[in-house]
Amino acid sequence: MSGETSRLKVLRIRDGKTESLRDVVIKESPVTIFLDDIELANLMCSPKNLDCLAVGFLFAEGIIRSKKDVKKVFADEKDGVVWVELKKAVKSTEELIARRFITTGCGKGLTYFDATQGGERLRSKSRFKVRVDSLPLLMREFLRKSRLYRFTGGVHSAAICSARKILVFNEDIGRHSAIDKVVGECILKGIKTTDRIMVTTGRISSEILVKAARSRTPIIVSKSAPTDLAVRLAADFGITLVGFARGSRMNIYSNAWRVVTHREKR
Amino acid sequence: MSGETSRLKVLRIRDGKTESLRDVVIKESPVTIFLDDIELANLMCSPKNLDCLAVGFLFAEGIIRSKKDVKKVFADEKDGVVWVELKKAVKSTEELIARRFITTGCGKGLTYFDATQGGERLRSKSRFKVRVDSLPLLMREFLRKSRLYRFTGGVHSAAICSARKILVFNEDIGRHSAIDKVVGECILKGIKTTDRIMVTTGRISSEILVKAARSRTPIIVSKSAPTDLAVRLAADFGITLVGFARGSRMNIYSNAWRVVTHREKR
Repeated sequence: MSGETSRLKVLRIRDGKTESLRDVVIKESPVTIFLDDIELANLMCSPKNLDCLAVGFLFAEGIIRSKKDVKKVFADEKDGVVWVELKKAVKSTEELIARRFITTGCGKGLTYFDATQGGERLRSKSRFKVRVDSLPLLMREFLRKSRLYRFTGGVHSAAICSARKILVFNEDIGRHSAIDKVVGECILKGIKTTDRIMVTTGRISSEILVKAARSRTPIIVSKSAPTDLAVRLAADFGITLVGFARGSRMNIYSNAWRVVTHREKR
Repeated sequence: MSGETSRLKVLRIRDGKTESLRDVVIKESPVTIFLDDIELANLMCSPKNLDCLAVGFLFAEGIIRSKKDVKKVFADEKDGVVWVELKKAVKSTEELIARRFITTGCGKGLTYFDATQGGERLRSKSRFKVRVDSLPLLMREFLRKSRLYRFTGGVHSAAICSARKILVFNEDIGRHSAIDKVVGECILKGIKTTDRIMVTTGRISSEILVKAARSRTPIIVSKSAPTDLAVRLAADFGITLVGFARGSRMNIYSNAWRVVTHREKR
């Protein structure tokens, strides 16, 4: 964990008493993604699994569709640089620049507009179901693994799970990057994301929902809230959206048929 | 509040019992910012105070420096469009396009690199101080005002405060946009942000810290965690960074001299 955190001097005040100490703070580092020697993106992230981050990011942006599109990935985690070589460029540099222009801040507008235009293509046809009592168990295991969160309170966690266990788990200071990392790791390791459950600590906005849709994950579960647009897109895309998954509680916002209650036979 | 939330059908599961109900979900809407008829940015946000959001966003991006640069702002909140006319274009369109290219996702890399290069310019010279017992009172008032958060769990709140009270308060689904809104509102209303306190529910990453530095706010307080890079930048910029401000507790990470404990005379 040492590579992902720093120990910094802190003045702690509690009930009027002050105490100087060194406390664990989450690390934030810039990473530059080069695509075929073109500087494509500069992200602020947690400096771990940068190869997964780069591949997941390229996938989320629609630049690659599978591992087959990737010739080579090399990540220098110390210097925060990832080089990705593609077998065949999917988009021209000009197109990429034009895309980035109206894609901004935390709101990746274009990704969303892509999604509404290409809705039918992203529609989940998965018949995958999960027993309602599996979700609290998965969630408990997921939060138990979130070491960085417990130590620093400063990260988001994401995972790709089967109905019974966590297959891939990552943490990052950004909720988008945490999800890009798990999707990228699945792509690099050849782990299928169809008929899986995506779990996140972060709020489910439209962009997060689109990341689930692109990765073909039919169920997304968060301990936090969704937005109305994410719920509407989930309904359209045939994705089961579960929010506020805390202990034995959860809210199912769309396609609840995938969550099997006890009385129903599978 | 009705414009900022939707009521959606939810299946709530609690201890194995299911219940169908309509629940309040936070609204997420696309907004397009036009700058002198050029489509500059497309953000996903809470559809309120879009004029403040646009002005705060342009300020954070270094496109405007004060209200004097703005000739006219017109926001159509229903259609999610804001038109901003500048008195004098600060940057050329080509420069703006080039900027956006390497500015991405939740990690606005360029903003950070700008900051490290222009560090001396952003350095706070403010001698503003605040009594340690003012901060818990401000924080309590701040959280009390966060109605949307309490109803939906899905937003971030931000405020600009004097030592005694909240001057400007906004909520948004994005922690960046919540801060852009308060800074934009201060610009539009002619409320000075020097010698003020910026308060946020969100984590303090380098980009959030740079927003505080650009607005000349010498103290930033969050109920959440900072990143190590935000702490280092705060130390460099002469900004007081307070994290985990909860009840009578807080951690001061940099320039603690601005927080006056009881024994010290002002």
